[in-house]
Amino acid sequence: MIIIGEKINASLAGIKGIVLERDRTGLLELARTQAAAGADFIDVNVGTGVGSREDEICSMQWAIETIQEEVETPLCIDSADSAVLEAGLKARNGRPSLINSTKAEENNLEQVVPLARQYDTPLVGLAMDKAGIPKTVEGRLRACEQIAAACEKHGVSSETLYLDPLVIPVSTDINQGLVTLNTIADIKKQFPAAKTVMGLSNVSYGLPGRTGLNAAFLHMAIYAGLDAAITDPLDKALMGAVKMAEVLVGKDRHCRRYTRAFRK
Amino acid sequence: MIIIGEKINASLAGIKGIVLERDRTGLLELARTQAAAGADFIDVNVGTGVGSREDEICSMQWAIETIQEEVETPLCIDSADSAVLEAGLKARNGRPSLINSTKAEENNLEQVVPLARQYDTPLVGLAMDKAGIPKTVEGRLRACEQIAAACEKHGVSSETLYLDPLVIPVSTDINQGLVTLNTIADIKKQFPAAKTVMGLSNVSYGLPGRTGLNAAFLHMAIYAGLDAAITDPLDKALMGAVKMAEVLVGKDRHCRRYTRAFRK
Repeated sequence: MIIIGEKINASLAGIKGIVLERDRTGLLELARTQAAAGADFIDVNVGTGVGSREDEICSMQWAIETIQEEVETPLCIDSADSAVLEAGLKARNGRPSLINSTKAEENNLEQVVPLARQYDTPLVGLAMDKAGIPKTVEGRLRACEQIAAACEKHGVSSETLYLDPLVIPVSTDINQGLVTLNTIADIKKQFPAAKTVMGLSNVSYGLPGRTGLNAAFLHMAIYAGLDAAITDPLDKALMGAVKMAEVLVGKDRHCRRYTRAFRK
Repeated sequence: MIIIGEKINASLAGIKGIVLERDRTGLLELARTQAAAGADFIDVNVGTGVGSREDEICSMQWAIETIQEEVETPLCIDSADSAVLEAGLKARNGRPSLINSTKAEENNLEQVVPLARQYDTPLVGLAMDKAGIPKTVEGRLRACEQIAAACEKHGVSSETLYLDPLVIPVSTDINQGLVTLNTIADIKKQFPAAKTVMGLSNVSYGLPGRTGLNAAFLHMAIYAGLDAAITDPLDKALMGAVKMAEVLVGKDRHCRRYTRAFRK
């Protein structure tokens, strides 16, 4: 399982200030702790919701340059704005990265997919279109098809595509857990070379006992075919849930990673 | 999810004595606590491993008669011996029951399946044959096909058939978790009217942290299509795992059973 550390996200309280005040120590602490906890990528989202596009571009440059001086872990450059993504990719200067994200919307695809080609960097595609997140598995797969078609058009291999089925809280629509899980399974069938990725925590929004629900959803998602999770690598319950799921679906030969993690 | 309480099993230390000594109080305590915890069926297995077939028949009659005087919960009559099963069914005298079990072995099918017809009682069929438990999904499905064919031959509806994919510890073969889960999913496709049932705890044999692993496996199995679990209804972690899984796969409209269970 590929773990993408989610903690550097300026929409979160506490992180916004780090970005706006250029708090180098605070930023590096978030990067170092996630790297030490075993994150395969560290997500970097500097969208504070205040200021201009230029401000976000400058923030992304600052964040990327600051982190990569001290931390070698690959970075996941996270923005809805292709100019911000490109600023991050330029600052990375060829170091291992992940573009997060594009979606099934023509303008966005035309701006973001060529960056994946130009910077030879894998790309997250969200299973949503200009109307939002489709409520059905079929709708989400149509969005994935549109993203995969744009990748093919621009010469981006589906092996470097991470498709995100997206997660809607079950408290707002009880069928949405199954829609996400079945979308993962169908993506693996229809795009066998692509990877699947998702954030977990939305599923339990509005319900009590969220950590347990998120872990249960992760177990199911890993059985359905999830390859990567955008999550908190410092959350021991969720990281334990990954190790348990891997042993149960045969991805931990001789059960060694599980037993080692359990002893810790 | 249908819960079959597993605690009255004379192969377990502590239960053997209850059966051999005809400990009415001890037996009723096990039945009452499982019923109070919400078991849909209470399994009754009186195979102590000592004594004759006649002894086991007498023990089954005693156990069934003793329990049903005080507890109304349906009973799951559990033996590999058709004569013991029939003794239990006779003692039930038409009360709701489940026959546990037959398997894909001709003599056994010819002895047990007619009981399901004669006593109009649902039946558990194990996905194994005379050579043991097949290592592959295809092998287990072939066993299920043989059981389903015997049911059809004897006029037993597949709606009253509970197919058990069986569980081999992942510590002995890392692929076996996935074999069981994929067998559940394929049973639901190939025999849509039949139910699926399994015991959980074998999966984690030989590994640390068994409760967590069993719960994770239950989450995956419920997503794969598990209808019934043979488990300990007094185990709060596992019963909580059932409630979590049901909310995530859309089987708990308005999330009410989950939130009620969580508050407790």
